[in-house]
Amino acid sequence: MELKSLDPNIRTAVEQYKALEEKIAHLSMISSLVGWDQKVTAPKKGRDLFAKAIGTFRTEQFKLSVSEEMGSLLRLLSAPEVQADLDEITQAQLRERTAEYERFKKIPEDMYRDYVVLTSKANHAWEEARERSDFSLFQPYLEKIVDFNRKMAEIFGYDQHPYDALLHEFEPGLSVAVLDPLFAKLRESSVGLLERINRSGNKPSTAVFEQAFEVDQQKKFNHYFLPILGFDMNAGRLDETVHPFAQSMNTGDVRITTRYLQNNVRSAVFGTIHEAGHGIYEQNIDPRFEETVLSSGASFGIHESQSRFLENMIGRSESFWTYFYPKLQEHFPKQLEGVSQHDFYRAINSVQPTMIRVEADELTYNLHIMIRYEIEKALINGDIEVAELPAIWNEKMQEYLGITPANDTEGVLQDVHWSFGGFGYFPSYSLGNLYAAQLLNTILREKPDFYADIEAGRFEGIQEWLKDKIHRHGKLYTPEQLIRQVTGEDLKADYLVDYLEEKYSRIYGL
Amino acid sequence: MELKSLDPNIRTAVEQYKALEEKIAHLSMISSLVGWDQKVTAPKKGRDLFAKAIGTFRTEQFKLSVSEEMGSLLRLLSAPEVQADLDEITQAQLRERTAEYERFKKIPEDMYRDYVVLTSKANHAWEEARERSDFSLFQPYLEKIVDFNRKMAEIFGYDQHPYDALLHEFEPGLSVAVLDPLFAKLRESSVGLLERINRSGNKPSTAVFEQAFEVDQQKKFNHYFLPILGFDMNAGRLDETVHPFAQSMNTGDVRITTRYLQNNVRSAVFGTIHEAGHGIYEQNIDPRFEETVLSSGASFGIHESQSRFLENMIGRSESFWTYFYPKLQEHFPKQLEGVSQHDFYRAINSVQPTMIRVEADELTYNLHIMIRYEIEKALINGDIEVAELPAIWNEKMQEYLGITPANDTEGVLQDVHWSFGGFGYFPSYSLGNLYAAQLLNTILREKPDFYADIEAGRFEGIQEWLKDKIHRHGKLYTPEQLIRQVTGEDLKADYLVDYLEEKYSRIYGL
Repeated sequence: MELKSLDPNIRTAVEQYKALEEKIAHLSMISSLVGWDQKVTAPKKGRDLFAKAIGTFRTEQFKLSVSEEMGSLLRLLSAPEVQADLDEITQAQLRERTAEYERFKKIPEDMYRDYVVLTSKANHAWEEARERSDFSLFQPYLEKIVDFNRKMAEIFGYDQHPYDALLHEFEPGLSVAVLDPLFAKLRESSVGLLERINRSGNKPSTAVFEQAFEVDQQKKFNHYFLPILGFDMNAGRLDETVHPFAQSMNTGDVRITTRYLQNNVRSAVFGTIHEAGHGIYEQNIDPRFEETVLSSGASFGIHESQSRFLENMIGRSESFWTYFYPKLQEHFPKQLEGVSQHDFYRAINSVQPTMIRVEADELTYNLHIMIRYEIEKALINGDIEVAELPAIWNEKMQEYLGITPANDTEGVLQDVHWSFGGFGYFPSYSLGNLYAAQLLNTILREKPDFYADIEAGRFEGIQEWLKDKIHRHGKLYTPEQLIRQVTGEDLKADYLVDYLEEKYSRIYGL
Repeated sequence: MELKSLDPNIRTAVEQYKALEEKIAHLSMISSLVGWDQKVTAPKKGRDLFAKAIGTFRTEQFKLSVSEEMGSLLRLLSAPEVQADLDEITQAQLRERTAEYERFKKIPEDMYRDYVVLTSKANHAWEEARERSDFSLFQPYLEKIVDFNRKMAEIFGYDQHPYDALLHEFEPGLSVAVLDPLFAKLRESSVGLLERINRSGNKPSTAVFEQAFEVDQQKKFNHYFLPILGFDMNAGRLDETVHPFAQSMNTGDVRITTRYLQNNVRSAVFGTIHEAGHGIYEQNIDPRFEETVLSSGASFGIHESQSRFLENMIGRSESFWTYFYPKLQEHFPKQLEGVSQHDFYRAINSVQPTMIRVEADELTYNLHIMIRYEIEKALINGDIEVAELPAIWNEKMQEYLGITPANDTEGVLQDVHWSFGGFGYFPSYSLGNLYAAQLLNTILREKPDFYADIEAGRFEGIQEWLKDKIHRHGKLYTPEQLIRQVTGEDLKADYLVDYLEEKYSRIYGL
């Protein structure tokens, strides 16, 4: 930025603001690392004390981001006559920081403190309730969490639907008015497609997966393909956790995890590919954004689009396995003997309604999200109450997926999100699928060799495209701007609907 | 503590002080973790940015510990009439914190911040210099570090020798005047003993170690014996690094590292036992001291005494291998076939001057320390300059050990300490040996079954004794108080001199 051309007072304010951003970025880097460590490497006995230490640390971070200094700098630099003189990057930083500042500033301090304690306890209660399959153990905590979120929706404010206020935290600019028709179209077509699949006489066999796959060999295979997909091992790690996740510290330190199940070789492979999608996004953000609020994904939905694109559009394509199946066979000669590549491809794309969201296939996955979305909207709106959740959950499972959970553990208690108060988070997953399909449509137009490249194990060109169009921009653009800029239009459900229709028609001979 | 009986103003001050201590402890826990991570797990490309983040973070920590609030609380609570009403633990906390406060208060803030960044970069430069065996790559960083330490010695102040000012950080109360005669006695007797050993006609054969020992089996053996010695694996980890170290986050999270060399099975075994000595110390500190400045070892020397005691007095004893040699043979049946337990014991205690300190035997180890001690004294005093180090190093190696390094990697570049500015640290190692021998003398009087327990693989009683006498007290007592309390006298060189004389006379038939 040409600081020199600015008014001296403004120039000083910009410098102070950037120093403050840098400090927040440094603390946030450390806080992310501690979070990663406690999930991946920390020994058991030290964790309680670390939970306290993290509490102390995050409070300091929070104070900085809502400090008087931050407030007055943001006020000064947000004035229209000042904005006009600032470059695009500084403007975007101020936009993101101001949104966070205003959000945080509105939360009464004692209410926030109570909420942090509540969600910490709720998480333990959820774990216990899930273990015992007893929703009533979690219910009182969830009632308070819902109550807090209802209040927050009012405090944050909204135009039409109170749920919009919560959605904004995960997908800035998104609203129920926009989501409802997108999701309705996707739900209807998915339910219809699922019915036709269920009636199909040409179902893939998944017998190949009913074997043990040695964990050591799984590890070798995952560590083999990960860098080929574009994940830089000098700027990241692959570790093991029960629940796979990606955590970025900075663009040179992005850590992902996976889980190896002897009886489910798909779990690690697709878990790793999925998290690699998140990881490569973070590794590819423009280094100029490092140490600023812009050095992360544009939104939860856009982030998820990158993991889904790599996992599904690439990792579950026939081209992908044209290249990798012979390598997989080298790792598991006994298990894969006599299984053709095409049969393997069909097997990994088998559609089978399941109780558990994280185990769902590409098609039924979105139906799991619809159920959560509809419940969250109604809860925040006050149309339903927490006590009704188990019954409503089971009804919707029957309605959309044709199966009913035998208990709360495989029903309403399966996800961690509500225990930390993440209302508005779930839609990101299906948004990610919608974005990913729209991006696939664009990349196929711009790079006609897309599948040929995948078949040849050449991912550089594809990753360059994703980097150029999405990754490098970090949070510079809003998700809406970004998708319009890359695909030439607003988000539409048609691309995902068509993609699923086409893919499964071929696999199931519909 | 009976806070109720205190004057209300004092009570409030004590509460504020303890809250501040807790906050500092939380930040310090996090800062230790980040340090561990950057050495053990962090991918390369993110480290420079983490160095900056750590700089920011430590500056915040530093500000807290020298804050106005801290200063006025310490002044208020240090008044003699207040002290009299405080319990022993609070008094000790105030003693330690005041010493640190006064030390830190003297360091200009910007100087400190620059130094943190400098040492972080210096560490990477040292690594590269060592890899390429090129001192000149490290020299400019080391010059700045020495310069800083010379300045600090003047700023901290001293009575007789500027090096005293730096020694205090590692061994409170210690001075060149005390160390010189202790070290002189040890050096003279060691050089004499070494000459007699060199002339001995009854040298142990070390041929057994000139074989490859599979790294996988080494890992298994190390992970097998570590918990038996008393290291709690639920409150710690064992990882791999080039330079083994121990890092405590809290008593429930103590992490140690070792290194596995295929051609040197001793390296990992004794490295692990050594770091376990440090680790068990930290795990056994009284939990009441958690989140206070007292929750760490009494001093670097006392800390080292615990690692040396476990590594040498226990791990290099014949009794130890009476129990563990059969287990080692199970791990390496081919390599150890036909090697008797007694021959193995003699082999691990073979005295052989070597270039590398961390690979040195129990006797010549102290001579490595003497070289570093003398160089550090002269550097800080301004008698020599950094550029002269490689030559001086090689001369002293020839004088004390009779060998000359072929290059800087096996000479002046071998240790990490100077890269983080740890001037005054090295003497702790020989101090540790001196303390350890004095403790051995006491434990043998108080627990006559000492060697019988080791022979039977029973370490609980020994660890209980060490916990009771040393570990649990953390920093409650000064090293001087502690050693007097446990052994009934001040530190003397005689115990180590006699121990070495007796041990090697037996092994070498002198």
